[in-house]
Amino acid sequence: MKTVTAAILVIGDEVLSGRTRDANTQVLAKALGAVGVQLREARAIADDEDTIIEALNALRTRFDYVFTSGGIGPTHDDITAEAVGKAFGARVTIREDARALLENHYGDRINEGRLRMARIPDGADLIDNPVSIAPGFRIENVFVMAGVPRIFAVMLDAVLPTLEGGGVVGEVSLPCSVPEGELSAPLGAVADKHPKVSIGSYPRMKPEGGFAVTLVARSVDAEALAAAEADLRALLVEMA
Amino acid sequence: MKTVTAAILVIGDEVLSGRTRDANTQVLAKALGAVGVQLREARAIADDEDTIIEALNALRTRFDYVFTSGGIGPTHDDITAEAVGKAFGARVTIREDARALLENHYGDRINEGRLRMARIPDGADLIDNPVSIAPGFRIENVFVMAGVPRIFAVMLDAVLPTLEGGGVVGEVSLPCSVPEGELSAPLGAVADKHPKVSIGSYPRMKPEGGFAVTLVARSVDAEALAAAEADLRALLVEMA
Repeated sequence: MKTVTAAILVIGDEVLSGRTRDANTQVLAKALGAVGVQLREARAIADDEDTIIEALNALRTRFDYVFTSGGIGPTHDDITAEAVGKAFGARVTIREDARALLENHYGDRINEGRLRMARIPDGADLIDNPVSIAPGFRIENVFVMAGVPRIFAVMLDAVLPTLEGGGVVGEVSLPCSVPEGELSAPLGAVADKHPKVSIGSYPRMKPEGGFAVTLVARSVDAEALAAAEADLRALLVEMA
Repeated sequence: MKTVTAAILVIGDEVLSGRTRDANTQVLAKALGAVGVQLREARAIADDEDTIIEALNALRTRFDYVFTSGGIGPTHDDITAEAVGKAFGARVTIREDARALLENHYGDRINEGRLRMARIPDGADLIDNPVSIAPGFRIENVFVMAGVPRIFAVMLDAVLPTLEGGGVVGEVSLPCSVPEGELSAPLGAVADKHPKVSIGSYPRMKPEGGFAVTLVARSVDAEALAAAEADLRALLVEMA
């Protein structure tokens, strides 16, 4: 089963200033995982054309799919479509198919600002936006989508059936009452025994103090995952 | 006033699998902003040594400061310290100062796994961790910190006074009842008039439907920011 990878490029000063917390990465990670696409990098950058072009070109050559979020609205700070066009060396114009969608939606409230949302690079296909109509677009392996989470989510719904996934990574989570520091050696032994399975140990602080630990095993190989799970469960019983 | 920049490298499969949502970026962004350091990139990557080394070397040469979160615990999947050492060509050993902290804390519960948390690259300085003792470390312009948010936060508290900041970016947020598409042209004109100020328009969906918009102006130049704010307020009155 082949491995299919993806990255997300979160475009927008608002995440880097701390004004907002990115929500799209987690939604994308889960949705992609379910169709056999593994999210391998999430990169948030500022609304700066050169930065967008450089990051996009780095990611689109490295991963099978790249998703961008943000910067496709009607205002002057929405520069994603232009930057994506430049990254691909593609001309960006007001496309008739996108213009028709917006004119039909806005009627006589259409204006120059709203028509900015019809600016699409040559060679791109539109991505449906049933929530607020202004489309996203796909160009080669890059999906350019809105930053507003509800719109990102509906664009993702439109895009998911078009992806060619690989093996789906199965995941098993086991709560663990043993401190990580005592688990280290035997857990490492289990991990060594199951090279096809990625085994992680995730501590978090409990509100009342001290740590709770979750063991997570992940693999595209269901049989290998089941074998690792059995060994992890046995380890937890033994150490309890 | 000089510009001082930073990036965060979030290390860990758990963010990319969608199991957890990164919280440290927002905390870091706000804290750095207050001391005049601008977060310019946030990159989440998997627990993979080559990936960590490559990303860290890209970021540490590009930004004044780099903060990493995650992968410095006691278990086999905690590989950040080794990877950071390799990125710098620095040997990583169990350091006596870190060992002393851990032995003092754990007493006779010290073991090989817990001593993994004393593995520190040559030339690094320890970062205090009053919550769970195992230290982070600073090597050159890179701060290697824990992923658990409460520990990341206390390490950040320890580190902030040591940073040399530049101009602090002031921020003004104005709620706006005008739809973005109608605001586009006049807002662009205000942005053109104030080149020292970054003006953004951030839509979000209201629970009852439709969008709410926030205008945000940001600048290190307080006078320029005040002038832009006055023009934005006038624009909002005019369009209301």
